[in-house]
Amino acid sequence: MSTLMKGKELADIIRQDILSQVEAMKARGIEPRMATVLVDGDPASLYYAEAKGRAADKLGIDYELHKLPANVSEEFLLSVLDKLNQAPDIHGIMLELPLPKHLNKQRIISAINPIKDVDGLTQTNLLATILGTPGLYPATPLACLGLAKHYGYDVFGKHVVLVGVGETVGKPLLHLLLREKATVTVCHSKTPDLSVHLKQADFAFVAAGRADLIRPEMVHENLVLIDAGINETADGNIVGDAQPEVANHVAAMTPTPGGVGTVTTAQLFANLMTAMNLQANREEVR
Amino acid sequence: MSTLMKGKELADIIRQDILSQVEAMKARGIEPRMATVLVDGDPASLYYAEAKGRAADKLGIDYELHKLPANVSEEFLLSVLDKLNQAPDIHGIMLELPLPKHLNKQRIISAINPIKDVDGLTQTNLLATILGTPGLYPATPLACLGLAKHYGYDVFGKHVVLVGVGETVGKPLLHLLLREKATVTVCHSKTPDLSVHLKQADFAFVAAGRADLIRPEMVHENLVLIDAGINETADGNIVGDAQPEVANHVAAMTPTPGGVGTVTTAQLFANLMTAMNLQANREEVR
Repeated sequence: MSTLMKGKELADIIRQDILSQVEAMKARGIEPRMATVLVDGDPASLYYAEAKGRAADKLGIDYELHKLPANVSEEFLLSVLDKLNQAPDIHGIMLELPLPKHLNKQRIISAINPIKDVDGLTQTNLLATILGTPGLYPATPLACLGLAKHYGYDVFGKHVVLVGVGETVGKPLLHLLLREKATVTVCHSKTPDLSVHLKQADFAFVAAGRADLIRPEMVHENLVLIDAGINETADGNIVGDAQPEVANHVAAMTPTPGGVGTVTTAQLFANLMTAMNLQANREEVR
Repeated sequence: MSTLMKGKELADIIRQDILSQVEAMKARGIEPRMATVLVDGDPASLYYAEAKGRAADKLGIDYELHKLPANVSEEFLLSVLDKLNQAPDIHGIMLELPLPKHLNKQRIISAINPIKDVDGLTQTNLLATILGTPGLYPATPLACLGLAKHYGYDVFGKHVVLVGVGETVGKPLLHLLLREKATVTVCHSKTPDLSVHLKQADFAFVAAGRADLIRPEMVHENLVLIDAGINETADGNIVGDAQPEVANHVAAMTPTPGGVGTVTTAQLFANLMTAMNLQANREEVR
């Protein structure tokens, strides 16, 4: 029987830890507060932003959603971010992606104060993730590794195939895996035959964003597969990069939904706690 | 017969290109000038620093060597770098490594103005290398890739084994290889059996800094091997990470000395040209 690595158990542990940190902060008179900036236009983004609001509520974390019109100017969006950067009662800032095409994504992301950047989108935090220095690491890569560990799978010295090397998941995940001393084979759209690599690997971390990419005949029964892909099908369902029946042909696999994504949402608020600790330390340094 | 990928031919091409750029700059009244900062104590560093001086001389590039005493204070060293950062007639700054233990390497490296950092040591330039944005990429990774290309070997879509993932060579090289669309397997000291991966690869890029790491029985006759290792033997000879006889068991290999290192020295001055172009563009922006 293969193991289904559901995210809820680990997410609950993370949330329990956050709850006690929040309680301790409130006892010291600090009210944790997260702000999300959303440019209107993408229904999925609105859904996520509101879901995060409900999650924050359950954790005793204040949450504000700044919904800007689809035709918002870059200058106005930057001024909103600037105010949130300056506000001492805002501890974390999330910017919902994708942005409309008329906005310069890189310029806007780099306007977020790295110490409030709980999504780990800024170059400062990407560099911290790569170098292993203090900072806010992106939540999805942390969730991938956390989920494997939670189920007792350690990548140390193991052969890992990483599929996809995008800026937000694959690239930071690559460096987390290397710091855990995995031997990592990085595959992508120009890899001629993915299955050649998957057949030999101990682990597969998949973050390509392509439904049906991983099929049963490409894997083997001892593989541990972490699927970070989130794809919407034509009929509106959420599926991963691996077909669900792949689970019957590997040792362990994360379900989608209910796997990596479930942990990621909890990890985002764990990042808020990290951000608040970084901010507190910086205050002390001053 | 296997190909010996000597560095001299490519180094000559690079130098020829530099010579014509230097000539054009001088015609516009600009005298290219490189400064090396050396803290006394490591005989090999002094040798390299002086060799670079001779290389500069042949290219018509002014060169100044700042030799500081072994017990120099961090503050004094930083003040030297600051003066070089400010000096409008200095276009490139090289800091010889290793530094004595009493000096904070990270703090000192980050004091180098990234736009003059021809060794690509600063975090700004590491990030540029990783993201593929304009900047000064480290010379050794550029030399490795350049040498393969010069001999007609293109890594696009090929399976590359990278051995070693250090900050100065392996890590930037990994991202250059990924941008060239190679499938990359990253191996290191915790990889249980390097030969398993080498036996299947089209290319091996080796930057582990360990003599005798790659032996004839670990490779195969179609492998293209780029050896960036530079190791000193007990009797004072320079050897790579691959044993010289490996050359007889692969399709192509770089010799050491006379391979990657030879191109790297030329590439450093090519980086000075890149730095001067970046500086000129920045002037125009102001």
